[in-house]
Amino acid sequence: MEYTNGSALSGLKVLDMGRVLAGPACTALLADLGADVIKLETPGVGDDSRINLPKQNGQSTYFVNFNRSKKGITLNLKKGKDIFLRLIKEVDVLVENFRPGVMKKLGFDYETLREINPGLIYAAVSGFGQTGPYSQRAGFDPVAQALSGMMSITGYPDRPPVRCGSSVADVMAGMNATIGILAALQHRHATGRGQFIDASLVEAAIVGMASVNQVYLTTGVVPQRQGNGYTACAPGGCYHAIGGEVALLAMGEVAWEKLCNIIGRPELLQRPEFANNDERVKNKPELDRLIDEATSTIPIDDLVERLLAAKMPVSPIYNIAQVAADPHLADDRHVFTEVDHPTIGKVKITNQPFKMSETNPHVRGPSPSLGQHNNAVYRALGYSDKEIEDFAANGTI
Amino acid sequence: MEYTNGSALSGLKVLDMGRVLAGPACTALLADLGADVIKLETPGVGDDSRINLPKQNGQSTYFVNFNRSKKGITLNLKKGKDIFLRLIKEVDVLVENFRPGVMKKLGFDYETLREINPGLIYAAVSGFGQTGPYSQRAGFDPVAQALSGMMSITGYPDRPPVRCGSSVADVMAGMNATIGILAALQHRHATGRGQFIDASLVEAAIVGMASVNQVYLTTGVVPQRQGNGYTACAPGGCYHAIGGEVALLAMGEVAWEKLCNIIGRPELLQRPEFANNDERVKNKPELDRLIDEATSTIPIDDLVERLLAAKMPVSPIYNIAQVAADPHLADDRHVFTEVDHPTIGKVKITNQPFKMSETNPHVRGPSPSLGQHNNAVYRALGYSDKEIEDFAANGTI
Repeated sequence: MEYTNGSALSGLKVLDMGRVLAGPACTALLADLGADVIKLETPGVGDDSRINLPKQNGQSTYFVNFNRSKKGITLNLKKGKDIFLRLIKEVDVLVENFRPGVMKKLGFDYETLREINPGLIYAAVSGFGQTGPYSQRAGFDPVAQALSGMMSITGYPDRPPVRCGSSVADVMAGMNATIGILAALQHRHATGRGQFIDASLVEAAIVGMASVNQVYLTTGVVPQRQGNGYTACAPGGCYHAIGGEVALLAMGEVAWEKLCNIIGRPELLQRPEFANNDERVKNKPELDRLIDEATSTIPIDDLVERLLAAKMPVSPIYNIAQVAADPHLADDRHVFTEVDHPTIGKVKITNQPFKMSETNPHVRGPSPSLGQHNNAVYRALGYSDKEIEDFAANGTI
Repeated sequence: MEYTNGSALSGLKVLDMGRVLAGPACTALLADLGADVIKLETPGVGDDSRINLPKQNGQSTYFVNFNRSKKGITLNLKKGKDIFLRLIKEVDVLVENFRPGVMKKLGFDYETLREINPGLIYAAVSGFGQTGPYSQRAGFDPVAQALSGMMSITGYPDRPPVRCGSSVADVMAGMNATIGILAALQHRHATGRGQFIDASLVEAAIVGMASVNQVYLTTGVVPQRQGNGYTACAPGGCYHAIGGEVALLAMGEVAWEKLCNIIGRPELLQRPEFANNDERVKNKPELDRLIDEATSTIPIDDLVERLLAAKMPVSPIYNIAQVAADPHLADDRHVFTEVDHPTIGKVKITNQPFKMSETNPHVRGPSPSLGQHNNAVYRALGYSDKEIEDFAANGTI
């Protein structure tokens, strides 16, 4: 299959008022898909994440990653209300992740903006949603993972709950906003009308647990942490090998027999306490100890190859350096890419997670410097060079 | 804000050939957004997940959750090639999550199907992508979490890597397929042409780690497991209270001072080893011990209220029963919902994670029984009742 770079969202104008992660990740995806994304930042300060670690040549590559492929303008939303409203007339989509109510205080809530542009698709990402008693809480990923139940099911049963090590609630909330925006575009094709989209970190995390939720919803039994084990079958989980760790699963009697032979312990097949899956689940601690003892004597590459040859699900547990060095991931799937930044130099960043044959999403350029495209954008809105100079002089832009 | 149920994807015809989680979750979302989704299953057997736990009245509610709002047909893809091709002419979108190559072996690869329907949008979800040396590996969520690096950064540093307790790679891969499909629809509006979309579990997990990847990509330092702590600031993480555990973070000197006063330990502010953020990060184990000692004496609701009143990010760490009982989540945000199933009865399931003002996604009906809509769908394709009876009799449907 060939994947040809292209622009599925060609002509779509997006105003990115997002900060830090969820909002900017959503608009970076829209930009990589071909939308014309203008990032709006506060004059002199910009997105808070412009100072986030890590840095390269003194500048945040965290910011570069989530703001590649965008143009940048500055605007003081209190001083530049008319400018903002002129901008709103021109865009198809607005994305923001302020605390709910901030845009209303500025006079820019959806109800006001749709009067000016009835086709506007306004997507708001927040920690806990636009409605309800928790809407005003400070929303950040670890808090959303805590409230969603996700932490309660992650980690080992004899240790406190632990969060998924990355901001998956943030990332998924940005993806949900993207889905809402693209679905709203379909509705707009049919009706001409835009709408408001309300995506939250906590709901993203809850839907990220869907099959685990189902256990509680149907049985009333509260799912617990179980490390890397499974309640449904054994053995399975994380085991040591020489040179690394592997995740593997032996589901069913055929797989159990294969595993015992591959790790050189066929005698385990004779033990009554491992005679069937029910027994193996019941005696999992001892079973895991014996499996681990065996795998610990086998070089990891060898173990993985043997299990793969037997068509069993297995993977080495990679760290990020190993991900970046893996030929399949790095060379065939291009999971990381780079962008040439005019002042930072070449910056390595994370690519998009899917491919398209006709309009493959791809990085179009570096992140903008603060206000880099002020002149071009404000001229296109009809402001004269003199007006733009004045806006800059009095801190409006 | 009012959210009015509607159908953003009204008129969109989707053929769901997905099994278990990633494919079915994608098409359930399209169905809740208003698409007309037909689930195609093997006669007599159906989707493997029809037997997945949990069960209610003997039937899988796992299956109900991921297949609500769909119609169902059966078709033997080897016996019913002509029927399948007639179906392909009628649909806009095909979603499958077979191992790469399965559809080609059947004669139904994208290159063949687009000859019959040039507007077809064909989305394939797989463990490791359609291309590259790992494409044939058995892909399931824990393996994708292992290979992506996600497990390596989740859990405590003194314990083995642990997976995020739910199948987030599966869920995110389904979301990425959805985004690709909706973006491809935009391209089709402009050009009339469909395309192929290739989404994988492992890439979904890698992008789910975007800001953590960035540390390695920029600095070469390999991110490690750090439980609930942060490298950037302290204190923060998971602490005990009377009646539960909380996730909290004190970022900066003002928050540190607030925290010490709220937990009744103002004397910590005087200790030189906690004098600033650098010192607190350096002395985090002792700091965490002291914070935990203090929070352990405070009732959880009281602790959370005090920290929220001080505008600090905090949440009780909920289990799923607490999520389901929480007024904000359950009543205001409707994170769970229910569907009335003709043979199982009322089934509680997980709702979609975002809201739309004009076309709010919502559950439209129960999951289909195996082949429930055969007559209606095959009649609409032009087959006579006699032909349909014969298909059923000879195992074609």
